[in-house]
Amino acid sequence: MTVVQPVPEKFLERLRKALPGGVVAEASAAYLEEPRKYFNGKAAALLLPGSTTEVAIIVELCNRYSVGIVPYAGGTGLVGGQIRPDDPPAMVLSVERLNSVRSINPIENIMIAEAGVVLANAQASAAEHDRLFPLSLASEGTCRIGGNLATNAGGVQVLRYGNARELCLGLEAVLPDGSIYHGLHGLRKDNTGYDLRNLLIGSEGTLGIITAASLKLYPQPGELFTAMVSVESPVHALDLLAKMQAQSGGLVSAFELMHQQGLAFLQEALPQVRLPFGSTPEWSVLLEVGSASGLAMEECITSCLEKAIDGKLVDDVLIAQNRQQRDEFWNVRESIPEANRLIGSLSSHDISVPVSAIPRFIAIANAAIEKLGNYRINCFGHVGDGNLHYNVFPAKGESSAGCGHAGDAIRETVYDIVHQLGGSFSAEHGIGRLKIEALEHYGDPARLAAMRAIKKALDPNGIMNPGAVVRE
Amino acid sequence: MTVVQPVPEKFLERLRKALPGGVVAEASAAYLEEPRKYFNGKAAALLLPGSTTEVAIIVELCNRYSVGIVPYAGGTGLVGGQIRPDDPPAMVLSVERLNSVRSINPIENIMIAEAGVVLANAQASAAEHDRLFPLSLASEGTCRIGGNLATNAGGVQVLRYGNARELCLGLEAVLPDGSIYHGLHGLRKDNTGYDLRNLLIGSEGTLGIITAASLKLYPQPGELFTAMVSVESPVHALDLLAKMQAQSGGLVSAFELMHQQGLAFLQEALPQVRLPFGSTPEWSVLLEVGSASGLAMEECITSCLEKAIDGKLVDDVLIAQNRQQRDEFWNVRESIPEANRLIGSLSSHDISVPVSAIPRFIAIANAAIEKLGNYRINCFGHVGDGNLHYNVFPAKGESSAGCGHAGDAIRETVYDIVHQLGGSFSAEHGIGRLKIEALEHYGDPARLAAMRAIKKALDPNGIMNPGAVVRE
Repeated sequence: MTVVQPVPEKFLERLRKALPGGVVAEASAAYLEEPRKYFNGKAAALLLPGSTTEVAIIVELCNRYSVGIVPYAGGTGLVGGQIRPDDPPAMVLSVERLNSVRSINPIENIMIAEAGVVLANAQASAAEHDRLFPLSLASEGTCRIGGNLATNAGGVQVLRYGNARELCLGLEAVLPDGSIYHGLHGLRKDNTGYDLRNLLIGSEGTLGIITAASLKLYPQPGELFTAMVSVESPVHALDLLAKMQAQSGGLVSAFELMHQQGLAFLQEALPQVRLPFGSTPEWSVLLEVGSASGLAMEECITSCLEKAIDGKLVDDVLIAQNRQQRDEFWNVRESIPEANRLIGSLSSHDISVPVSAIPRFIAIANAAIEKLGNYRINCFGHVGDGNLHYNVFPAKGESSAGCGHAGDAIRETVYDIVHQLGGSFSAEHGIGRLKIEALEHYGDPARLAAMRAIKKALDPNGIMNPGAVVRE
Repeated sequence: MTVVQPVPEKFLERLRKALPGGVVAEASAAYLEEPRKYFNGKAAALLLPGSTTEVAIIVELCNRYSVGIVPYAGGTGLVGGQIRPDDPPAMVLSVERLNSVRSINPIENIMIAEAGVVLANAQASAAEHDRLFPLSLASEGTCRIGGNLATNAGGVQVLRYGNARELCLGLEAVLPDGSIYHGLHGLRKDNTGYDLRNLLIGSEGTLGIITAASLKLYPQPGELFTAMVSVESPVHALDLLAKMQAQSGGLVSAFELMHQQGLAFLQEALPQVRLPFGSTPEWSVLLEVGSASGLAMEECITSCLEKAIDGKLVDDVLIAQNRQQRDEFWNVRESIPEANRLIGSLSSHDISVPVSAIPRFIAIANAAIEKLGNYRINCFGHVGDGNLHYNVFPAKGESSAGCGHAGDAIRETVYDIVHQLGGSFSAEHGIGRLKIEALEHYGDPARLAAMRAIKKALDPNGIMNPGAVVRE
């Protein structure tokens, strides 16, 4: 694809003329950093369109002048998809002003939300209509629907409700030539040609800019059962999950495995977070099961847990008795990423393997890391999806700065093991700019060639998020 | 895209040399017809590859010589996607010999099935491992997994489990240049680039040939509740569905609306099919709810139905008491398409609208058809998905042959109403060759342009199912 061009003289002036006042602005530092500070962005300007039409005007002009656009939603992505560190500086196009929930239809179970709606606000809007929008992740107070879809976000309820992809029935988007794709119909069935929706979802802003989406809503579970349990090993955790799924017919909505190390990090870095067990077990699981009222689900699950205790599958069980206890349990799980950040990892990995290979992955990876040096491993995640956040830290008392390039060797070791087990080196975070080399190294060649051909076909001038996901 | 070329002299010989004996054969009549006989196909040869490698050899050669390939699975498609009536005759590539279930993993809940596996056999293989493969449609005894995925098949359990797309975790496919895409990993989460899987699913063989798929399995419902109910109107049917979904927390797996006309057709054309009600009501619904055992689902649903009777939402309820009664109820529903075929429709429509617009669609369309003439309308389908098969027939005693081009006016009328209601003119059957003009007329222009660009990028010689779905 053509390399994007420096912003021509008078281009900004042209943009200002074509758009209402305030749309063309200067990019403050906040738009040029990302959470882990791996990348420092550059920008020729910050664009703040207030409507889909304004997005289309911008894209059409940028395409005409081969000016790059970096789409920006909540800025919480962890792979640098929202930051362009390279020259020539591009336009940062933030969807933050496209922030209205256009409609909610509780009979259709559909919400139409614009790309700039903060995820927590989308959840709250659904709840106001007694509906559940199940996408839920640690950054939900900041991340925005457009970014969630562009990266096919995952989170803690994928097990039951799927990724962002499965929660989206239709899209409105501006394609790289500035045309508007009107696909918000929200039909449950529509077999009329290629699946442009799913191609845009997960393309991380490289094939177009999502401006709004039809999102699936679900009944709020009338009963919610939340518990924190301790288990001896990941094998036991998976066995427990299989039993609970069989017994409930697949009603488990969250099943989060946490290693002792994560809870120790909480104690060290965020001592205000209350830990559930008096003495922290090696492995804990936060689990949640939801159903309609009146289905005898609680009896079903407690009987399942009792059998698990009798069979030594589970060591200890804490059942949330009220909303506050539930929030406390979840606070433990959701504070782990922040504790990780404060401790400072050497190398963080968002990997997936076939679910049944999880224990094997942990055993092999732990042994391999041990050979590399004296490190601490915090391993936690959505084990029911085969997805672990497997993060490696310096030994206690040491800092990551003192470890040189150890992170590179660790990453390579982890990715190689994942690849051998048929897994993915990016389960939910995406490729962005951080994982392009990994994609080129581990990706299926036929698929990579198809990706490049699609990128070139839909964005011949290479203006959409240049440098992210695919490169020539 | 380049127009495909006539099969060059010696090409078949070259193919024969490159492939084991028996792969290159002559296409018998069965491969050149489709169920409703709208198209008569032509073929230069029938190809019967026995492995993915052989498919790749064929595609690579065809691509080199710009020879067209029509992929063929079960041959049950209703829009002519499997039949090329045009010159030059192309190769028909049947996947029927790729017919093994490569593996079933009941712990992972994944089955890897080759493209030629008959759907009913895939269901049976899952059942042998006490798992459910939920894709279910009238032609399941003949249609094959490759065709189900290529067309993103729907059917009677979409409400709970989704279309073929939602049931597929990964694909193996041969792309138009003959390269093999190895994507069978079956990971629940993998965010490493563009969604080639969903692009191939529903592309009806125009972007590549699916050779195998990782399919999602589910627990077999321990309890299954099947009932036939009569309702006064589609409004009542939808109201009942909403109440049952709320009460059960979304456990309804089938909700099939049938108009009196369909049951009258059964009486007329297939009198051996036993009708459920003594006197056929204007509207019936076949519903099914499944759950794990021990969840008190049956009490929940019967109480819901009792309330519905008290509230005059439902007139009569027949609950299947055993497997045989259940099969009888389903036989009624699944015999309707065959009765339709025997009666002979003027124009058949596989449409979807937003679920809550179903009653409005039926009222408006019935009134519009009445203005066009004296016709019989058989309206039935997956009302919970907003998907109706809305088929129009000559008056009793008349034949479709005697109605001239009435079908064209009827189709245009129906499609216009669907479009005004924000619906789709092809909910589950696809585009094939039958609906290309409708797609060009009603489709979103930005999406159509993107489809053409993708087709050209991935299949520059236009060899894959030439003439289907997109044309220049």
